[in-house]
Amino acid sequence: MLIGAIEAGGTKFVCAVGDESGDIIAKTSFPTKDPEETFKDVNNFFREYKVEAIGIGCFGPVDLDKKSDTYGTILNTPKTKWIQYDVLGKLKKDLKVPVYIDTDVNAAALAEYKYGAGRDVNSCMYITVGTGIGAGYVQDGNTYVGKSHPEMGHVLIQQHENDAFPGGCPYHGNCLEGLASGPAIEKRYGKKGHQLAADSHVWELEAYYLAQAIMNYFLILAPERIILGGGVMKQQQLYPLIRRKFLEMMNGYLTIENADTFIVAPELNDEQGVRGAMALVPVMLRN
Amino acid sequence: MLIGAIEAGGTKFVCAVGDESGDIIAKTSFPTKDPEETFKDVNNFFREYKVEAIGIGCFGPVDLDKKSDTYGTILNTPKTKWIQYDVLGKLKKDLKVPVYIDTDVNAAALAEYKYGAGRDVNSCMYITVGTGIGAGYVQDGNTYVGKSHPEMGHVLIQQHENDAFPGGCPYHGNCLEGLASGPAIEKRYGKKGHQLAADSHVWELEAYYLAQAIMNYFLILAPERIILGGGVMKQQQLYPLIRRKFLEMMNGYLTIENADTFIVAPELNDEQGVRGAMALVPVMLRN
Repeated sequence: MLIGAIEAGGTKFVCAVGDESGDIIAKTSFPTKDPEETFKDVNNFFREYKVEAIGIGCFGPVDLDKKSDTYGTILNTPKTKWIQYDVLGKLKKDLKVPVYIDTDVNAAALAEYKYGAGRDVNSCMYITVGTGIGAGYVQDGNTYVGKSHPEMGHVLIQQHENDAFPGGCPYHGNCLEGLASGPAIEKRYGKKGHQLAADSHVWELEAYYLAQAIMNYFLILAPERIILGGGVMKQQQLYPLIRRKFLEMMNGYLTIENADTFIVAPELNDEQGVRGAMALVPVMLRN
Repeated sequence: MLIGAIEAGGTKFVCAVGDESGDIIAKTSFPTKDPEETFKDVNNFFREYKVEAIGIGCFGPVDLDKKSDTYGTILNTPKTKWIQYDVLGKLKKDLKVPVYIDTDVNAAALAEYKYGAGRDVNSCMYITVGTGIGAGYVQDGNTYVGKSHPEMGHVLIQQHENDAFPGGCPYHGNCLEGLASGPAIEKRYGKKGHQLAADSHVWELEAYYLAQAIMNYFLILAPERIILGGGVMKQQQLYPLIRRKFLEMMNGYLTIENADTFIVAPELNDEQGVRGAMALVPVMLRN
Protein backbone atom coordinates (compact mmCIF):
# COMPACT_ATOMS: atom_id res chain seq x y z
CA MET A 1 0.00 0.00 0.00
CA LEU A 2 1.42 3.35 -1.05
CA ILE A 3 0.73 6.06 1.54
CA GLY A 4 1.05 9.81 1.16
CA ALA A 5 2.12 12.09 4.00
CA ILE A 6 1.98 15.83 4.47
CA GLU A 7 3.68 17.77 7.21
CA ALA A 8 1.74 21.01 6.89
CA GLY A 9 3.73 23.62 8.77
CA GLY A 10 3.21 27.33 9.04
CA THR A 11 6.44 28.06 7.15
CA LYS A 12 6.92 24.98 5.00
CA PHE A 13 5.12 21.93 3.72
CA VAL A 14 6.83 18.55 3.46
CA CYS A 15 5.18 15.94 1.25
CA ALA A 16 6.26 12.32 1.07
CA VAL A 17 5.25 8.95 -0.26
CA GLY A 18 6.03 5.73 1.53
CA ASP A 19 4.75 2.38 2.65
CA GLU A 20 3.03 1.04 5.73
CA SER A 21 6.30 0.23 7.43
CA GLY A 22 7.06 3.96 7.45
CA ASP A 23 9.85 3.91 4.88
CA ILE A 24 9.94 7.01 2.71
CA ILE A 25 10.21 6.45 -1.04
CA ALA A 26 10.08 10.08 -2.21
CA LYS A 27 9.95 13.42 -0.47
CA THR A 28 9.78 17.10 -1.30
CA SER A 29 9.28 20.35 0.54
CA PHE A 30 8.29 23.89 -0.36
CA PRO A 31 7.42 27.12 1.46
CA THR A 32 3.88 27.57 2.78
CA LYS A 33 2.14 30.17 0.62
CA ASP A 34 -1.54 31.00 0.20
CA PRO A 35 -3.72 27.91 0.43
CA GLU A 36 -4.48 27.65 -3.31
CA GLU A 37 -0.83 28.01 -4.34
CA THR A 38 0.32 25.65 -1.62
CA PHE A 39 -2.10 22.92 -2.61
CA LYS A 40 -1.08 23.33 -6.25
CA ASP A 41 2.40 22.29 -5.12
CA VAL A 42 0.91 19.45 -3.08
CA ASN A 43 -1.06 18.17 -6.05
CA ASN A 44 1.95 18.43 -8.35
CA PHE A 45 3.89 16.15 -6.05
CA PHE A 46 1.23 13.51 -5.47
CA ARG A 47 0.21 13.40 -9.15
CA GLU A 48 3.15 11.11 -9.84
CA TYR A 49 2.20 8.49 -7.23
CA LYS A 50 -0.82 6.26 -6.82
CA VAL A 51 -1.26 6.76 -3.07
CA GLU A 52 -4.20 4.95 -1.50
CA ALA A 53 -4.52 7.23 1.51
CA ILE A 54 -2.95 10.36 2.92
CA GLY A 55 -2.05 11.37 6.44
CA ILE A 56 -1.58 15.02 7.30
CA GLY A 57 -0.12 16.58 10.43
CA CYS A 58 -1.39 20.13 10.23
CA PHE A 59 -0.40 23.42 11.81
CA GLY A 60 -3.20 24.89 13.80
CA PRO A 61 -5.39 25.55 15.44
CA VAL A 62 -7.31 23.04 13.36
CA ASP A 63 -10.81 21.75 14.11
CA LEU A 64 -10.45 18.09 15.14
CA ASP A 65 -13.93 17.59 16.57
CA LYS A 66 -15.29 14.83 14.34
CA LYS A 67 -18.84 15.92 15.10
CA SER A 68 -18.17 19.46 13.93
CA ASP A 69 -19.36 20.79 10.58
CA THR A 70 -15.92 22.29 10.11
CA TYR A 71 -13.86 19.17 10.95
CA GLY A 72 -10.46 19.48 9.31
CA THR A 73 -10.69 23.25 8.87
CA ILE A 74 -8.07 25.76 10.05
CA LEU A 75 -9.45 28.04 12.77
CA ASN A 76 -8.02 31.37 13.97
CA THR A 77 -4.43 31.82 12.85
CA PRO A 78 -2.18 34.81 12.23
CA LYS A 79 -1.92 33.49 8.63
CA THR A 80 -5.15 35.20 7.67
CA LYS A 81 -5.59 33.58 4.25
CA TRP A 82 -5.74 30.20 5.99
CA ILE A 83 -8.51 31.11 8.44
CA GLN A 84 -11.52 28.84 7.86
CA TYR A 85 -9.65 27.02 5.12
CA ASP A 86 -10.95 23.46 4.75
CA VAL A 87 -7.68 21.54 4.48
CA LEU A 88 -9.30 18.14 4.80
CA GLY A 89 -12.02 18.84 2.25
CA LYS A 90 -9.54 20.31 -0.24
CA LEU A 91 -7.27 17.26 -0.07
CA LYS A 92 -10.12 14.79 -0.38
CA LYS A 93 -11.54 16.65 -3.35
CA ASP A 94 -8.24 16.99 -5.19
CA LEU A 95 -6.66 13.62 -4.46
CA LYS A 96 -9.78 11.47 -4.19
CA VAL A 97 -8.41 9.19 -1.48
CA PRO A 98 -9.17 8.91 2.25
CA VAL A 99 -7.34 11.62 4.21
CA TYR A 100 -6.48 11.37 7.93
CA ILE A 101 -5.78 14.61 9.73
CA ASP A 102 -4.25 15.38 13.11
CA THR A 103 -2.16 18.16 14.64
CA ASP A 104 1.46 18.56 13.56
CA VAL A 105 2.62 17.82 17.10
CA ASN A 106 0.48 14.69 17.44
CA ALA A 107 1.99 13.43 14.19
CA ALA A 108 5.48 14.13 15.53
CA ALA A 109 4.67 12.36 18.81
CA LEU A 110 3.39 9.36 16.86
CA ALA A 111 6.57 9.12 14.78
CA GLU A 112 8.79 9.27 17.86
CA TYR A 113 6.54 6.68 19.52
CA LYS A 114 6.75 4.27 16.60
CA TYR A 115 10.27 4.80 15.32
CA GLY A 116 12.16 7.15 17.63
CA ALA A 117 12.74 8.11 21.23
CA GLY A 118 9.45 6.60 22.38
CA ARG A 119 9.63 3.24 20.65
CA ASP A 120 10.19 1.29 23.90
CA VAL A 121 7.35 2.85 25.94
CA ASN A 122 3.55 2.72 25.94
CA SER A 123 2.96 6.46 26.01
CA CYS A 124 4.94 9.56 25.22
CA MET A 125 4.62 13.28 24.72
CA TYR A 126 6.47 15.21 22.06
CA ILE A 127 6.96 18.86 22.97
CA THR A 128 8.32 21.31 20.43
CA VAL A 129 9.90 24.49 21.77
CA GLY A 130 10.53 26.90 18.92
CA THR A 131 8.64 29.80 17.35
CA GLY A 132 5.72 28.51 19.39
CA ILE A 133 5.36 25.76 21.94
CA GLY A 134 3.13 22.80 21.24
CA ALA A 135 2.82 19.24 22.38
CA GLY A 136 1.33 16.00 21.14
CA TYR A 137 0.56 12.86 23.09
CA VAL A 138 0.38 9.21 22.12
CA GLN A 139 -0.88 6.40 24.33
CA ASP A 140 -0.96 2.75 23.24
CA GLY A 141 -0.38 3.80 19.65
CA ASN A 142 -3.19 6.34 19.46
CA THR A 143 -2.78 10.11 19.31
CA TYR A 144 -4.76 12.03 21.90
CA VAL A 145 -7.49 14.44 20.82
CA GLY A 146 -10.20 15.75 23.14
CA LYS A 147 -13.40 17.60 22.26
CA SER A 148 -11.05 19.85 20.36
CA HIS A 149 -7.32 19.95 19.64
CA PRO A 150 -5.27 20.36 22.82
CA GLU A 151 -3.10 23.48 22.85
CA MET A 152 -0.68 22.46 25.56
CA GLY A 153 1.87 25.17 24.86
CA HIS A 154 -0.37 27.81 26.42
CA VAL A 155 -0.60 26.35 29.93
CA LEU A 156 -0.17 28.72 32.84
CA ILE A 157 2.89 28.34 35.07
CA GLN A 158 4.54 30.41 37.77
CA GLN A 159 6.65 33.33 36.62
CA HIS A 160 10.08 33.55 38.24
CA GLU A 161 10.29 36.36 40.78
CA ASN A 162 13.37 37.79 39.05
CA ASP A 163 11.85 37.73 35.58
CA ALA A 164 10.15 41.04 34.80
CA PHE A 165 9.38 40.13 31.16
CA PRO A 166 5.61 40.53 30.69
CA GLY A 167 5.41 37.55 28.34
CA GLY A 168 4.89 37.58 24.60
CA CYS A 169 1.69 35.62 24.04
CA PRO A 170 -0.88 37.87 22.35
CA TYR A 171 -3.67 35.96 24.12
CA HIS A 172 -2.32 35.16 27.58
CA GLY A 173 0.82 37.26 28.07
CA ASN A 174 2.86 35.10 30.42
CA CYS A 175 1.62 31.60 29.62
CA LEU A 176 4.30 28.99 28.85
CA GLU A 177 4.59 29.99 25.20
CA GLY A 178 4.61 33.65 26.21
CA LEU A 179 7.56 33.06 28.57
CA ALA A 180 9.61 30.29 27.00
CA SER A 181 9.25 30.19 23.18
CA GLY A 182 12.12 31.26 20.94
CA PRO A 183 10.58 34.70 20.29
CA ALA A 184 10.05 35.16 24.06
CA ILE A 185 13.76 34.57 24.65
CA GLU A 186 14.63 37.04 21.91
CA LYS A 187 12.23 39.70 23.22
CA ARG A 188 13.40 39.31 26.80
CA TYR A 189 17.13 39.57 26.07
CA GLY A 190 17.22 41.39 22.72
CA LYS A 191 19.19 38.51 21.19
CA LYS A 192 18.35 35.16 19.69
CA GLY A 193 18.79 32.01 21.77
CA HIS A 194 21.83 30.73 19.90
CA GLN A 195 23.58 34.08 20.50
CA LEU A 196 22.97 33.58 24.22
CA ALA A 197 24.29 30.01 24.33
CA ALA A 198 27.00 30.82 26.89
CA ASP A 199 24.75 32.70 29.31
CA SER A 200 23.76 30.20 31.97
CA HIS A 201 21.09 32.48 33.47
CA VAL A 202 19.12 32.33 30.22
CA TRP A 203 18.96 28.54 30.29
CA GLU A 204 18.33 28.27 34.02
CA LEU A 205 15.23 30.43 33.53
CA GLU A 206 14.18 28.56 30.37
CA ALA A 207 14.53 25.24 32.20
CA TYR A 208 12.56 26.63 35.15
CA TYR A 209 9.58 27.28 32.86
CA LEU A 210 9.80 24.09 30.83
CA ALA A 211 10.17 21.96 33.96
CA GLN A 212 6.98 23.47 35.38
CA ALA A 213 5.08 22.71 32.19
CA ILE A 214 6.40 19.15 32.22
CA MET A 215 5.28 18.81 35.83
CA ASN A 216 1.78 19.90 34.84
CA TYR A 217 1.67 17.54 31.87
CA PHE A 218 2.94 14.73 34.05
CA LEU A 219 0.36 15.34 36.78
CA ILE A 220 -2.46 15.37 34.23
CA LEU A 221 -1.48 12.85 31.56
CA ALA A 222 1.16 10.76 33.36
CA PRO A 223 3.06 9.88 30.16
CA GLU A 224 5.84 7.33 30.36
CA ARG A 225 8.27 9.57 28.47
CA ILE A 226 8.67 13.25 27.58
CA ILE A 227 10.48 14.04 24.31
CA LEU A 228 11.62 17.65 23.95
CA GLY A 229 12.41 18.97 20.47
CA GLY A 230 12.27 22.15 18.41
CA GLY A 231 14.74 24.92 17.76
CA VAL A 232 15.24 26.08 21.34
CA MET A 233 16.11 22.53 22.43
CA LYS A 234 19.16 22.60 20.16
CA GLN A 235 20.71 24.09 23.31
CA GLN A 236 21.71 20.69 24.67
CA GLN A 237 22.56 22.14 28.07
CA LEU A 238 18.82 22.47 28.67
CA TYR A 239 18.18 18.74 29.09
CA PRO A 240 20.08 18.19 32.36
CA LEU A 241 18.82 21.53 33.72
CA ILE A 242 15.20 20.63 32.98
CA ARG A 243 15.59 17.17 34.53
CA ARG A 244 17.09 18.62 37.70
CA LYS A 245 14.44 21.31 38.09
CA PHE A 246 11.62 18.89 37.34
CA LEU A 247 12.82 16.56 40.11
CA GLU A 248 13.23 19.49 42.52
CA MET A 249 9.72 20.74 41.82
CA MET A 250 8.09 17.32 42.08
CA ASN A 251 9.92 16.94 45.39
CA GLY A 252 9.44 13.19 45.62
CA TYR A 253 5.66 13.41 45.30
CA LEU A 254 5.48 10.73 42.63
CA THR A 255 8.12 8.20 41.75
CA ILE A 256 10.25 9.10 38.74
CA GLU A 257 12.32 6.02 38.14
CA ASN A 258 14.98 7.68 36.02
CA ALA A 259 14.84 11.30 34.91
CA ASP A 260 17.51 10.63 32.24
CA THR A 261 15.18 8.27 30.41
CA PHE A 262 12.01 10.19 31.30
CA ILE A 263 13.00 13.52 29.72
CA VAL A 264 14.87 12.95 26.47
CA ALA A 265 15.78 14.41 23.07
CA PRO A 266 14.00 13.33 19.88
CA GLU A 267 15.69 10.75 17.65
CA LEU A 268 14.17 11.39 14.25
CA ASN A 269 16.18 14.46 13.34
CA ASP A 270 13.40 16.74 12.05
CA GLU A 271 11.68 13.90 10.18
CA GLN A 272 9.10 13.40 12.96
CA GLY A 273 6.48 15.49 11.22
CA VAL A 274 6.32 13.76 7.89
CA ARG A 275 6.94 10.26 9.20
CA GLY A 276 4.23 10.81 11.79
CA ALA A 277 1.80 12.04 9.15
CA MET A 278 2.44 8.79 7.28
CA ALA A 279 1.92 6.78 10.47
CA LEU A 280 -1.48 8.38 11.01
CA VAL A 281 -2.97 6.29 8.20
CA PRO A 282 -2.61 2.80 9.75
CA VAL A 283 -3.56 4.19 13.19
CA MET A 284 -6.76 5.73 11.91
CA LEU A 285 -7.63 2.75 9.69
CA ARG A 286 -7.42 0.58 12.82
CA ASN A 287 -9.78 2.81 14.82
CA MET B 1 -25.50 -9.77 37.29
CA LEU B 2 -25.01 -8.60 40.86
CA ILE B 3 -22.12 -6.13 41.13
CA GLY B 4 -20.35 -4.91 44.24
CA ALA B 5 -18.98 -1.41 44.62
CA ILE B 6 -16.58 0.18 47.06
CA GLU B 7 -15.91 3.87 47.43
CA ALA B 8 -12.70 3.66 49.42
CA GLY B 9 -12.13 7.09 50.87
CA GLY B 10 -9.54 8.29 53.31
CA THR B 11 -12.16 8.98 55.99
CA LYS B 12 -14.97 6.58 55.11
CA PHE B 13 -15.71 3.53 53.03
CA VAL B 14 -19.03 3.13 51.22
CA CYS B 15 -19.97 -0.37 50.06
CA ALA B 16 -22.90 -1.15 47.82
CA VAL B 17 -24.49 -3.88 45.77
CA GLY B 18 -26.34 -3.22 42.56
CA ASP B 19 -26.92 -4.29 39.01
CA GLU B 20 -25.41 -3.43 35.63
CA SER B 21 -27.86 -0.58 35.08
CA GLY B 22 -26.29 1.16 38.08
CA ASP B 23 -29.24 0.81 40.44
CA ILE B 24 -28.21 0.31 44.06
CA ILE B 25 -29.91 -2.53 45.94
CA ALA B 26 -28.13 -2.19 49.27
CA LYS B 27 -25.57 0.18 50.71
CA THR B 28 -23.59 0.75 53.89
CA SER B 29 -20.79 2.97 55.06
CA PHE B 30 -18.29 2.99 57.91
CA PRO B 31 -15.21 4.98 58.94
CA THR B 32 -11.85 4.10 57.40
CA LYS B 33 -9.72 2.41 60.05
CA ASP B 34 -6.60 0.27 59.75
CA PRO B 35 -6.63 -1.87 56.64
CA GLU B 36 -7.36 -5.16 58.41
CA GLU B 37 -10.26 -3.75 60.43
CA THR B 38 -11.63 -1.89 57.45
CA PHE B 39 -11.65 -4.96 55.24
CA LYS B 40 -13.32 -6.94 58.02
CA ASP B 41 -16.22 -4.49 57.66
CA VAL B 42 -16.07 -4.80 53.88
CA ASN B 43 -16.23 -8.58 54.06
CA ASN B 44 -19.10 -8.49 56.54
CA PHE B 45 -21.16 -6.47 54.11
CA PHE B 46 -20.46 -8.49 50.98
CA ARG B 47 -20.89 -11.85 52.73
CA GLU B 48 -24.65 -11.48 52.35
CA TYR B 49 -24.60 -10.99 48.58
CA LYS B 50 -23.46 -13.17 45.70
CA VAL B 51 -21.66 -10.46 43.73
CA GLU B 52 -19.96 -11.58 40.53
CA ALA B 53 -17.47 -8.73 40.36
CA ILE B 54 -16.43 -5.70 42.36
CA GLY B 55 -15.44 -2.20 41.32
CA ILE B 56 -13.45 -0.02 43.67
CA GLY B 57 -12.69 3.68 43.46
CA CYS B 58 -9.77 4.05 45.81
CA PHE B 59 -8.16 6.95 47.64
CA GLY B 60 -4.55 7.33 46.66
CA PRO B 61 -2.01 7.55 45.50
CA VAL B 62 -2.63 4.02 44.26
CA ASP B 63 -0.48 2.15 41.75
CA LEU B 64 -2.52 1.85 38.53
CA ASP B 65 0.29 0.76 36.22
CA LYS B 66 -0.95 -2.64 35.05
CA LYS B 67 2.61 -3.71 34.30
CA SER B 68 3.75 -2.98 37.82
CA ASP B 69 4.38 -5.67 40.43
CA THR B 70 2.45 -3.54 42.89
CA TYR B 71 -0.62 -2.84 40.72
CA GLY B 72 -3.53 -2.02 43.00
CA THR B 73 -1.35 -1.15 46.00
CA ILE B 74 -1.53 2.09 47.98
CA LEU B 75 1.65 4.12 47.63
CA ASN B 76 2.83 7.00 49.84
CA THR B 77 0.02 8.36 51.99
CA PRO B 78 -0.17 10.23 55.28
CA LYS B 79 -2.25 7.23 56.48
CA THR B 80 0.89 5.27 57.32
CA LYS B 81 -0.77 1.91 57.99
CA TRP B 82 -2.05 1.92 54.42
CA ILE B 83 1.34 2.50 52.79
CA GLN B 84 2.15 -0.42 50.47
CA TYR B 85 -1.16 -2.05 51.32
CA ASP B 86 -2.32 -4.31 48.49
CA VAL B 87 -5.98 -3.32 48.27
CA LEU B 88 -6.59 -5.19 45.02
CA GLY B 89 -4.92 -8.39 46.21
CA LYS B 90 -6.74 -8.33 49.53
CA LEU B 91 -10.16 -7.98 47.90
CA LYS B 92 -9.49 -10.68 45.33
CA LYS B 93 -8.30 -13.08 48.01
CA ASP B 94 -11.19 -12.44 50.39
CA LEU B 95 -14.08 -12.18 47.97
CA LYS B 96 -12.85 -14.51 45.20
CA VAL B 97 -14.34 -12.49 42.37
CA PRO B 98 -12.75 -10.23 39.73
CA VAL B 99 -11.98 -6.79 41.15
CA TYR B 100 -11.61 -3.62 39.05
CA ILE B 101 -9.74 -0.74 40.60
CA ASP B 102 -9.40 2.91 39.67
CA THR B 103 -8.94 6.20 41.49
CA ASP B 104 -11.80 7.61 43.57
CA VAL B 105 -11.98 10.66 41.28
CA ASN B 106 -12.04 8.59 38.10
CA ALA B 107 -14.93 6.58 39.55
CA ALA B 108 -16.76 9.82 40.38
CA ALA B 109 -16.12 11.17 36.89
CA LEU B 110 -17.48 7.95 35.39
CA ALA B 111 -20.68 8.13 37.44
CA GLU B 112 -21.34 11.73 36.44
CA TYR B 113 -20.57 10.79 32.82
CA LYS B 114 -23.02 7.89 32.83
CA TYR B 115 -25.79 9.13 35.10
CA GLY B 116 -25.16 12.74 36.06
CA ALA B 117 -23.93 16.09 34.82
CA GLY B 118 -21.94 14.54 31.98
CA ARG B 119 -24.52 12.17 30.55
CA ASP B 120 -25.04 14.24 27.37
CA VAL B 121 -21.35 14.70 26.44
CA ASN B 122 -18.54 12.48 25.14
CA SER B 123 -15.94 13.51 27.70
CA CYS B 124 -15.92 15.13 31.10
CA MET B 125 -13.72 15.86 34.06
CA TYR B 126 -14.85 15.61 37.65
CA ILE B 127 -12.85 17.84 39.96
CA THR B 128 -13.28 17.60 43.72
CA VAL B 129 -12.25 20.60 45.79
CA GLY B 130 -12.24 19.68 49.45
CA THR B 131 -9.65 18.46 51.94
CA GLY B 132 -7.52 17.87 48.87
CA ILE B 133 -8.02 18.59 45.20
CA GLY B 134 -8.24 15.76 42.72
CA ALA B 135 -9.68 15.19 39.29
CA GLY B 136 -10.77 12.28 37.15
CA TYR B 137 -11.38 12.19 33.43
CA VAL B 138 -13.62 10.09 31.22
CA GLN B 139 -13.56 10.04 27.45
CA ASP B 140 -15.95 7.93 25.36
CA GLY B 141 -16.91 5.95 28.44
CA ASN B 142 -13.37 5.09 29.55
CA THR B 143 -11.59 6.52 32.56
CA TYR B 144 -8.18 8.00 31.83
CA VAL B 145 -5.08 6.48 33.41
CA GLY B 146 -1.55 7.12 32.17
CA LYS B 147 1.64 5.31 33.05
CA SER B 148 0.55 6.00 36.61
CA HIS B 149 -2.45 7.62 38.25
CA PRO B 150 -2.77 11.30 37.33
CA GLU B 151 -2.63 13.65 40.31
CA MET B 152 -4.19 16.68 38.71
CA GLY B 153 -4.79 18.58 41.94
CA HIS B 154 -1.10 19.39 42.28
CA VAL B 155 -0.66 21.35 39.06
CA LEU B 156 1.28 24.59 39.23
CA ILE B 157 -0.57 27.84 38.59
CA GLN B 158 0.20 31.53 39.06
CA GLN B 159 -0.11 32.91 42.57
CA HIS B 160 -2.08 36.14 42.85
CA GLU B 161 0.16 39.13 43.51
CA ASN B 162 -1.91 40.10 46.56
CA ASP B 163 -1.86 36.63 48.08
CA ALA B 164 1.07 36.22 50.48
CA PHE B 165 0.01 32.77 51.71
CA PRO B 166 2.94 30.42 51.08
CA GLY B 167 0.66 27.51 50.19
CA GLY B 168 -0.11 24.46 52.26
CA CYS B 169 1.03 21.52 50.13
CA PRO B 170 3.74 19.60 51.99
CA TYR B 171 5.32 18.66 48.66
CA HIS B 172 4.92 21.71 46.44
CA GLY B 173 3.88 24.60 48.69
CA ASN B 174 1.83 26.74 46.35
CA CYS B 175 0.53 24.23 43.83
CA LEU B 176 -3.23 24.27 43.19
CA GLU B 177 -4.01 22.05 46.19
CA GLY B 178 -1.64 24.12 48.30
CA LEU B 179 -3.46 27.33 47.41
CA ALA B 180 -7.10 26.36 46.92
CA SER B 181 -8.07 23.29 48.98
CA GLY B 182 -10.34 23.62 52.01
CA PRO B 183 -7.41 23.47 54.46
CA ALA B 184 -5.56 26.12 52.41
CA ILE B 185 -8.53 28.47 52.79
CA GLU B 186 -8.63 27.79 56.51
CA LYS B 187 -4.88 28.35 56.97
CA ARG B 188 -4.89 31.55 54.92
CA TYR B 189 -7.81 33.20 56.72
CA GLY B 190 -7.88 31.39 60.08
CA LYS B 191 -11.50 30.35 59.48
CA LYS B 192 -13.24 27.58 57.58
CA GLY B 193 -14.72 28.29 54.17
CA HIS B 194 -18.35 28.18 55.29
CA GLN B 195 -17.57 30.80 57.97
CA LEU B 196 -16.24 33.06 55.20
CA ALA B 197 -19.22 32.63 52.91
CA ALA B 198 -20.03 36.35 52.84
CA ASP B 199 -16.49 37.52 52.11
CA SER B 200 -16.35 38.06 48.38
CA HIS B 201 -12.54 38.46 48.34
CA VAL B 202 -12.14 34.88 49.51
CA TRP B 203 -14.15 33.51 46.61
CA GLU B 204 -12.67 35.84 44.01
CA LEU B 205 -9.25 34.46 44.92
CA GLU B 206 -10.49 30.87 45.07
CA ALA B 207 -12.08 31.26 41.64
CA TYR B 208 -8.86 32.81 40.31
CA TYR B 209 -6.96 29.65 41.21
CA LEU B 210 -9.58 27.15 40.11
CA ALA B 211 -10.10 28.95 36.80
CA GLN B 212 -6.36 28.72 36.08
CA ALA B 213 -6.35 25.00 36.80
CA ILE B 214 -9.37 24.51 34.55
CA MET B 215 -7.58 26.45 31.82
CA ASN B 216 -4.61 24.10 32.11
CA TYR B 217 -6.81 21.00 32.09
CA PHE B 218 -8.69 22.36 29.10
CA LEU B 219 -5.53 23.15 27.14
CA ILE B 220 -4.16 19.65 27.78
CA LEU B 221 -7.18 17.34 27.78
CA ALA B 222 -9.83 19.44 25.99
CA PRO B 223 -12.77 17.85 27.83
CA GLU B 224 -16.27 18.68 26.69
CA ARG B 225 -17.43 19.45 30.23
CA ILE B 226 -15.91 20.29 33.62
CA ILE B 227 -17.85 19.16 36.71
CA LEU B 228 -16.76 20.80 39.96
CA GLY B 229 -17.71 19.14 43.24
CA GLY B 230 -16.42 18.63 46.77
CA GLY B 231 -16.94 20.53 50.02
CA VAL B 232 -15.52 23.86 48.91
CA MET B 233 -17.87 23.93 45.91
CA LYS B 234 -20.88 24.01 48.27
CA GLN B 235 -20.22 27.76 47.99
CA GLN B 236 -22.49 28.14 44.98
CA GLN B 237 -21.25 31.67 44.32
CA LEU B 238 -18.03 30.10 43.01
CA TYR B 239 -19.53 28.75 39.81
CA PRO B 240 -20.26 32.07 38.06
CA LEU B 241 -16.97 33.53 39.34
CA ILE B 242 -14.97 30.61 37.98
CA ARG B 243 -16.73 30.77 34.62
CA ARG B 244 -16.07 34.49 34.28
CA LYS B 245 -12.40 34.23 35.22
CA PHE B 246 -11.87 31.21 32.96
CA LEU B 247 -13.25 33.14 29.97
CA GLU B 248 -11.14 36.19 30.88
CA MET B 249 -7.98 34.11 31.11
CA MET B 250 -8.60 32.18 27.89
CA ASN B 251 -9.17 35.56 26.24
CA GLY B 252 -10.86 34.15 23.16
CA TYR B 253 -7.98 31.84 22.32
CA LEU B 254 -10.20 28.80 21.84
CA THR B 255 -13.94 28.75 21.33
CA ILE B 256 -15.98 28.04 24.44
CA GLU B 257 -19.50 27.70 23.15
CA ASN B 258 -21.24 28.23 26.48
CA ALA B 259 -19.42 28.59 29.80
CA ASP B 260 -22.65 27.87 31.71
CA THR B 261 -22.82 24.37 30.29
CA PHE B 262 -19.04 23.89 30.20
CA ILE B 263 -18.37 24.43 33.93
CA VAL B 264 -21.14 22.88 36.01
CA ALA B 265 -22.06 21.38 39.38
CA PRO B 266 -22.33 17.61 39.90
CA GLU B 267 -25.78 16.02 39.85
CA LEU B 268 -25.32 12.84 41.84
CA ASN B 269 -25.39 14.37 45.29
CA ASP B 270 -22.39 12.64 46.87
CA GLU B 271 -23.28 9.27 45.33
CA GLN B 272 -20.73 9.69 42.49
CA GLY B 273 -18.10 7.65 44.25
CA VAL B 274 -20.00 4.46 44.89
CA ARG B 275 -22.06 4.56 41.71
CA GLY B 276 -18.87 5.16 39.73
CA ALA B 277 -17.16 2.24 41.44
CA MET B 278 -20.06 0.06 40.33
CA ALA B 279 -19.83 1.45 36.79
CA LEU B 280 -16.16 0.47 36.59
CA VAL B 281 -17.10 -3.19 36.22
CA PRO B 282 -18.88 -3.06 32.84
CA VAL B 283 -16.30 -0.56 31.54
CA MET B 284 -13.39 -2.79 32.42
CA LEU B 285 -15.12 -5.97 31.24
CA ARG B 286 -15.55 -4.27 27.86
CA ASN B 287 -11.86 -3.33 27.57
